[in-house]
Amino acid sequence: MEITRHTFSEQLETVIKDINESAFIAIDGEFTGLDATASGHASHFDTPEERYNKIRQECSDFLLIQFGLCAFKADEEKRRYEAKPYNFYIFPTPLTRHAPDRRFLCQSSSIDFLCSQGFDFNKLFKEGIPFLIPDEENKLKAELERKHEEARKSGSGLLTSPYQGSAKKNYASIPEEQKPFLDNICEQIAEYLKGQDKEPLVIPPCNAFQRKLIYQTVEERFPDAHIETKTGEKKIRYMEVTRAKSPEEQQKLLKEKQNLEKMELDIQVGFTKVIRAITSSGKLVVGHNMFLDVFHILNNFHGTLPADLEEFKAVTKSVFPRLLDTKLMASTRPLQELISFSGLSDVLQTLQSPPFLPVQVDVAEGFERYHNGAGALHEAGYDALITGRCFATMVNYLGTLQNPPKEFTLPSSHIVEPFVNKLFLMRINDIPYLNLDGPDLRVNREHVFHVTFPKEWKPSDLHALFQPYGAVQISWLTETTAYVALHKKENASMALKALSQHVGSFHVISYAAHHLSKSTRFLSASSPAPLSSPSIPAKRKLKVNEADTVPRKAKRHSLTDEVSPYPVIPEEDESLNDSTTETVQHESCNSDLGQKMEDGETEKTKEKLFDESGTW
Amino acid sequence: MEITRHTFSEQLETVIKDINESAFIAIDGEFTGLDATASGHASHFDTPEERYNKIRQECSDFLLIQFGLCAFKADEEKRRYEAKPYNFYIFPTPLTRHAPDRRFLCQSSSIDFLCSQGFDFNKLFKEGIPFLIPDEENKLKAELERKHEEARKSGSGLLTSPYQGSAKKNYASIPEEQKPFLDNICEQIAEYLKGQDKEPLVIPPCNAFQRKLIYQTVEERFPDAHIETKTGEKKIRYMEVTRAKSPEEQQKLLKEKQNLEKMELDIQVGFTKVIRAITSSGKLVVGHNMFLDVFHILNNFHGTLPADLEEFKAVTKSVFPRLLDTKLMASTRPLQELISFSGLSDVLQTLQSPPFLPVQVDVAEGFERYHNGAGALHEAGYDALITGRCFATMVNYLGTLQNPPKEFTLPSSHIVEPFVNKLFLMRINDIPYLNLDGPDLRVNREHVFHVTFPKEWKPSDLHALFQPYGAVQISWLTETTAYVALHKKENASMALKALSQHVGSFHVISYAAHHLSKSTRFLSASSPAPLSSPSIPAKRKLKVNEADTVPRKAKRHSLTDEVSPYPVIPEEDESLNDSTTETVQHESCNSDLGQKMEDGETEKTKEKLFDESGTW
Repeated sequence: MEITRHTFSEQLETVIKDINESAFIAIDGEFTGLDATASGHASHFDTPEERYNKIRQECSDFLLIQFGLCAFKADEEKRRYEAKPYNFYIFPTPLTRHAPDRRFLCQSSSIDFLCSQGFDFNKLFKEGIPFLIPDEENKLKAELERKHEEARKSGSGLLTSPYQGSAKKNYASIPEEQKPFLDNICEQIAEYLKGQDKEPLVIPPCNAFQRKLIYQTVEERFPDAHIETKTGEKKIRYMEVTRAKSPEEQQKLLKEKQNLEKMELDIQVGFTKVIRAITSSGKLVVGHNMFLDVFHILNNFHGTLPADLEEFKAVTKSVFPRLLDTKLMASTRPLQELISFSGLSDVLQTLQSPPFLPVQVDVAEGFERYHNGAGALHEAGYDALITGRCFATMVNYLGTLQNPPKEFTLPSSHIVEPFVNKLFLMRINDIPYLNLDGPDLRVNREHVFHVTFPKEWKPSDLHALFQPYGAVQISWLTETTAYVALHKKENASMALKALSQHVGSFHVISYAAHHLSKSTRFLSASSPAPLSSPSIPAKRKLKVNEADTVPRKAKRHSLTDEVSPYPVIPEEDESLNDSTTETVQHESCNSDLGQKMEDGETEKTKEKLFDESGTW
Repeated sequence: MEITRHTFSEQLETVIKDINESAFIAIDGEFTGLDATASGHASHFDTPEERYNKIRQECSDFLLIQFGLCAFKADEEKRRYEAKPYNFYIFPTPLTRHAPDRRFLCQSSSIDFLCSQGFDFNKLFKEGIPFLIPDEENKLKAELERKHEEARKSGSGLLTSPYQGSAKKNYASIPEEQKPFLDNICEQIAEYLKGQDKEPLVIPPCNAFQRKLIYQTVEERFPDAHIETKTGEKKIRYMEVTRAKSPEEQQKLLKEKQNLEKMELDIQVGFTKVIRAITSSGKLVVGHNMFLDVFHILNNFHGTLPADLEEFKAVTKSVFPRLLDTKLMASTRPLQELISFSGLSDVLQTLQSPPFLPVQVDVAEGFERYHNGAGALHEAGYDALITGRCFATMVNYLGTLQNPPKEFTLPSSHIVEPFVNKLFLMRINDIPYLNLDGPDLRVNREHVFHVTFPKEWKPSDLHALFQPYGAVQISWLTETTAYVALHKKENASMALKALSQHVGSFHVISYAAHHLSKSTRFLSASSPAPLSSPSIPAKRKLKVNEADTVPRKAKRHSLTDEVSPYPVIPEEDESLNDSTTETVQHESCNSDLGQKMEDGETEKTKEKLFDESGTW
């Protein structure tokens, strides 16, 4: 169901009810852009801290313009769900003169992509639901209360002249050529006041200076008249004159006016209320590749986000107590072995065939837009619906692997727990997710090097440089720097020894050394130490190769005796099924590529990925 | 006539012809925002340098999204013009993968305002004409030439596989579960190659990784096949297989492909060509309150603008050799006395009645949109049309004041010269325009003070502070600073003496002292001295109260013996008409207010103006 500014107030209660009655909700967002700069926000060897801060720098100025929310109500008996997919258009139109006039960034290719998917920008700008972050709301509320209190004290709140109470010396002197115009208006008003007409006297549109002159003239000459500026079609302003009211009537009108102002503020709070309803429901919130969605939701409806990753995690959990990313689920064993591509439409397609059995999801009455599977990918409401469908089917499949197998598994099952509060990290090979519930995985990157080289260098030059040590994966950072990872990890120390001693056109250092120097530069540039946080001492953060590091998987399907960085599904007892007793694993290359296509990034970006990818 | 991406190429020649045949052209632009920050870009006591740099900082990230161009062809015999109003939608969609993916800022209230005026954003984003600044075009051209040269040398340019020529080690290994999929594709291709079908074999959409696998498999196994990726509806990519061609056919196809690429680049240059046509035509370009329009045109179609005002003037003149601002014309004597409000729609209305005689302007055949005066204000094409109408009528009126009076005066008349290359400066009381042809006016601001005060202060506190010296005009700078101007200039030195000695909650210094300290801070912060320029020595710029200062007019209609800062219309001989022999003058307050309303700024801004305005 499409929700715009015009239907929001009447639908809000139903939306909240649907959230509260659901077994889980699925969400999706559409934004005005992806990266504020051409250099983008992803490298294969980002740490979670780096990735988060790149997103913060690259994405904070874009706007979330469409929000999909699909509430899934479970019917355990009939082994089905009833889905209610809502599609909200969201735009920060300042509805009152005090509302913030937001500036936001757009990326041409993103706007073009949304257009090609049928996104209706006219509807967005004309009918988008406004929103306020809590800080803004509190400030506006305080201002309004102060204003109302003053009006109650002085009894002058009803007078809507913006010049009311200002010193006489602010009055404009009346230019000679405006006098006939004003005389004519005054005649009309005098006539109107003598009569009995219940309707207000409408003064035709005139410019702002003329309105000011009318205000001050009426105030001086007609104490019995009440004058007000109204906004008509095409934002053209005109004035209305009515007869002044008795003190009792004035009190009543004052009360009405103040209530109206409170209501206007309430309308401006708008979509933020839906996010608050999700928070208080405590429901599981499911999304596909949802890190950016979560980021934008918090940034738009909660407030500016902190530089520190641990603080960001705390904020996230305060707004979304339980999150689950279906892209992580699909990219983790045992599902990863059955789902070749983890892009949303690929997953949906894969889940249609055995061994999967699609869970019955009935779109509720009144939500005809997506009946019978109809709908458009990249419309947030539809994407939320199919994300939830995929989630329900995947959960059910995992249930069938239990001992004894379950025919219908609800999201409240313990099976789901390993995936809760972990956000999929795009294009990071060895750290599959951001862990909201604690410290992130630390990985061994001894086979990764930071290389500086002349800007003329091409990938082939880097391949040639490392040729003695086998194949490499390149992750470009700038025109003259890149991370280079050895396929054959055992050659790492040999390569470092040989290459790091070179003095000349290129410069090779270990990943750890590069990070240490970066962190040191960062720490000395800005204090107090931004890398430290209550939960993880800075020392532990800086030494990425020590203590709690977790080696990354060398290859898909390979079994190693290393500790797994991936979520492990708990078993009720010893399983008969090999695939679930194995350490669950993650497949990064394919899923990235599948998702890239869907995300509407340019062919250019994709090709660059191809050049460098492979399964490492 | 509306021009979009789809009609641009076929219409361009006609547009250029119309420009070249015109007596003058009128222009107008619509933008995605006005001010990047809430503090905005205008103060009543800006210097031209300050105003320009505020605009540069506040407006550079917004986009010009609609351009109105109206060519006026004169028919001297019939004393009429034929008008051809074009309305261009402009949007930087990256049409090829190499085109820049521009990021731009939007201001919610501006977007909302354009929507309320019927602006069609879907049309803009889907059908907007692209553009490139010359630097971008040259870079893309050089890249393309290099690529084509390489292809000619190697003979490999026809192969469109992005993996072509890359080392084998970049090839992805084929995952087990993809083998059936690939085998099926290979069977289809083998079958196709055996047959005689002239049509290409279409491979259904698959994801990017699968396309990579298909490319590399086809390259290895089918040397006789040619494979290409195409983009279909909703940006979905699919592949087409054709039979490999003979060397001659391949050469022909290579040529065709290269020509296509050149054409694509040419299409991306897009709207920039219209601006170039205006430049080479050398025609008079007329706009109403056109400083922002000129700024955005240069910024969007010429390149990033310099920090130095004199350099900006040089750039402006290189693109627009002759500019004329109708708002300046309407706000200058003798017209100013007859035109109370200088907003575009006010001027249009005023010019309908005596003493003005509207010049006959016939909208040409094929331009039905604005026939019979129909049209929507704030649609750039319509605004350009009425701007030109107003200009023609005002020029004609000035002609009737000549001795002997002329019945029909063309814009080539010397009457127009005093207004050429002067851009109206909004809301600056005493410097009516930016002079593109030389140094700007220097004014005496001895009666203006810079005041610092606690943030709790309201206008009434400032009025009270200056009460002993008469009425004041306040121009807020920040929450705690403002310029305050005395109405009674003769009290200036007395006020400065008394107030500047105060030590405590507020701090008063002279305007000149404040500017000097600002400039000194600025100069010491950034060298080489940015305030200096070849034409005006820095010294002269800093000492605003000396030498060539021009006192500002104290009051409208007042005659003084001061040198006038306003354009003076040259007379052919002694005039019998008093109003034209008088020093022409300028009326600032009313015109500002009128324009404010039109510009769609918030009521809040306007009110602030009221609080502080008056005729000084």
